[in-house]
Amino acid sequence: MPLISKKGNDLPESPIRKLVHFADEAKAKGIHVHHLNIGQPDIHAPKEAMAVVKDNGLDLLPYGSSEGSLSYRKALSNYYAKHNISINPEEIIVTTGASEALAFTLNSICDAGDEIIIPEPFYANYNGFAAAASVQVVPVVSLFDDQFKLPALAEIEAKISSKTRAILLCNPSNPTGYLYTKEEITALGKLALKHDLFFIVDEVYREFIHDETMEHFSVLELPGMEEHAIMIDSVSKRYSMCGARVGAMVSRNKSLLATALKFAHLRLSPATYALMASEAALSAPEDYLKGVVKEYTNRKETLMKALNDIDGVRVSNPTGAFYCMVELPVDNAEAFSKWLLTDFNLDQETVMFAPAAGFYSTPGYGLKEVRIGFVLNEEKLKRAAQILKSALAVYNNS
Amino acid sequence: MPLISKKGNDLPESPIRKLVHFADEAKAKGIHVHHLNIGQPDIHAPKEAMAVVKDNGLDLLPYGSSEGSLSYRKALSNYYAKHNISINPEEIIVTTGASEALAFTLNSICDAGDEIIIPEPFYANYNGFAAAASVQVVPVVSLFDDQFKLPALAEIEAKISSKTRAILLCNPSNPTGYLYTKEEITALGKLALKHDLFFIVDEVYREFIHDETMEHFSVLELPGMEEHAIMIDSVSKRYSMCGARVGAMVSRNKSLLATALKFAHLRLSPATYALMASEAALSAPEDYLKGVVKEYTNRKETLMKALNDIDGVRVSNPTGAFYCMVELPVDNAEAFSKWLLTDFNLDQETVMFAPAAGFYSTPGYGLKEVRIGFVLNEEKLKRAAQILKSALAVYNNS
Repeated sequence: MPLISKKGNDLPESPIRKLVHFADEAKAKGIHVHHLNIGQPDIHAPKEAMAVVKDNGLDLLPYGSSEGSLSYRKALSNYYAKHNISINPEEIIVTTGASEALAFTLNSICDAGDEIIIPEPFYANYNGFAAAASVQVVPVVSLFDDQFKLPALAEIEAKISSKTRAILLCNPSNPTGYLYTKEEITALGKLALKHDLFFIVDEVYREFIHDETMEHFSVLELPGMEEHAIMIDSVSKRYSMCGARVGAMVSRNKSLLATALKFAHLRLSPATYALMASEAALSAPEDYLKGVVKEYTNRKETLMKALNDIDGVRVSNPTGAFYCMVELPVDNAEAFSKWLLTDFNLDQETVMFAPAAGFYSTPGYGLKEVRIGFVLNEEKLKRAAQILKSALAVYNNS
Repeated sequence: MPLISKKGNDLPESPIRKLVHFADEAKAKGIHVHHLNIGQPDIHAPKEAMAVVKDNGLDLLPYGSSEGSLSYRKALSNYYAKHNISINPEEIIVTTGASEALAFTLNSICDAGDEIIIPEPFYANYNGFAAAASVQVVPVVSLFDDQFKLPALAEIEAKISSKTRAILLCNPSNPTGYLYTKEEITALGKLALKHDLFFIVDEVYREFIHDETMEHFSVLELPGMEEHAIMIDSVSKRYSMCGARVGAMVSRNKSLLATALKFAHLRLSPATYALMASEAALSAPEDYLKGVVKEYTNRKETLMKALNDIDGVRVSNPTGAFYCMVELPVDNAEAFSKWLLTDFNLDQETVMFAPAAGFYSTPGYGLKEVRIGFVLNEEKLKRAAQILKSALAVYNNS
């Protein structure tokens, strides 16, 4: 029998999707599963986006430009300008989700064995994209007790080696919900510049801020970082359009753009319908996003209150995105999460979490933690917390 | 300035898209460009596919299953059964185009430095996907004089080394239009089995056969190859839905499927709208595809007749797909193709070809050849041949 590659064998399983099989089995038994494991928004997409696809006049589906249509890139450029980010359409490559933007980035700047530094816990698929590109993730631990703020610069600098190619962040962070400050981004930018490293920031949750006194500061706002700054973006969360698979890689570095464009040519083009929807979404009134963010902020408050009411449960306080890290009074959060699907229900309902160990690169970290996405309405979140409370009582007494 | 990766620098430019910039400049000058460089069908997609998207009732765009919805995979399984291919839905992973199916395959079976054997000329992006996965392409030359039939088995076997992981084919072939016979596929299958190699066949042009006495024989019809056979598929050409970006990787090898599924989890899911369209396309009446193939066969005959009328031009006789290889009476077909866009027009019209050197892996091959896609109607193809004839007269006398 022919062998599977080492790369394929080593590729970690997604902690967000690895328990899906058990959830499917629970559903087959008639149990309702509350999905808090995945960042799948339940809020309506902008009606402009949905309408343009319904009203499309296409008779066939042609390839588009590999880099995305100029009209969409111009519209994106205008959108970024409203966020204090000055970017030309030529500096944007439209991708099949943020996933592909990250893959293009890693492949354009790293060869096998190169390293990237990432504060952990981090979006689990960063591990996967790094493994797929044979790149080594070098983690620097952020602490639950510090609300996962940026680790000390000296700690990060100590991890830089001759193989380091970039520092990577998600801001605000998936999975912690931490919003990095202008000061943190600026300091990290200086460090990247000092060591001539790329500074990649995944900013797909830019608008999702739960503290009115705070503002998002983009890596592209840093002066003097034209060759070093790379921004990753996506329409998935902003517009409840995860299934569009439309993202972007944005940079002012011409060599990098030319290289990424070769990878873009290779996969031909982004999806036609999804691109139409993404462009139309940009014409939604400003109220749309304000309403969406307000809804997530309300959910966050409801969820935190409900979780804090459960003995032994600790919750991080997310200032951005729509996730929080939750420490559970169990030895192994993955075993517990699996048990919730296979052996527990409260009146035919259960909950699904993403075990947090997969969001760390260092073995042994996050074993008692799960990531919870507040992507269900407040009533459902309260009910999910109730189910968790009952489940913990049963689990810890059996 | 931080460096671009060696992998990124080494990635070849797409010969199909590398002259796009010059075409854009020609268009800006008001010149109409006949695009024979790209496999972009101009025929209507099945109306069932277009209608289901227009009539969709979605309020937001959720992620789908990473492997594609079960209903689509069941429908695909029924479609394959009609082509004498017995495949379960569990043996199909839906991908973002055939491009991603190929990337998943290479990453699942190859590590850096591994080799795959491909008869050349081959679909140019195979070079790119191999380079992106740090895999070495080992070409075996197919000859224009033999209509690009399979090279002798002994020649192929001589290329097998301890690093060889797979043999890869496109059947019928892009760029040559050659339809490999049941005997050729069977012999190659035996060779793969003897050396315990994967045998990957890209069958996206399965239905496009221009000789009624011939039939397509799938790699999945080979007995005893359950662990070794991998089929790559796509809706792009079959249904004029290149912009859907929906393909599939099909295999009966459970370890391979499990590994590819990890790569699929990593990029989350295929695009939602495109998947709806692809599933609906399968319900189009059989007459749809028969009509499409008949149209391409007519075009092929018209194009060949017109090209054979030009002095010094040699054309391969494609029995499948919708491309032919054409040898031009010029020293360098790429320079000529560029000149057509930058320095020539016949009454404000010109033509764009894909220079064929990029479809070979061996330097120096295909220098006088271009790939022509017969993806325009017969009148336009005649006109394109007329433009080529005039252009050659000017080029070779200047």
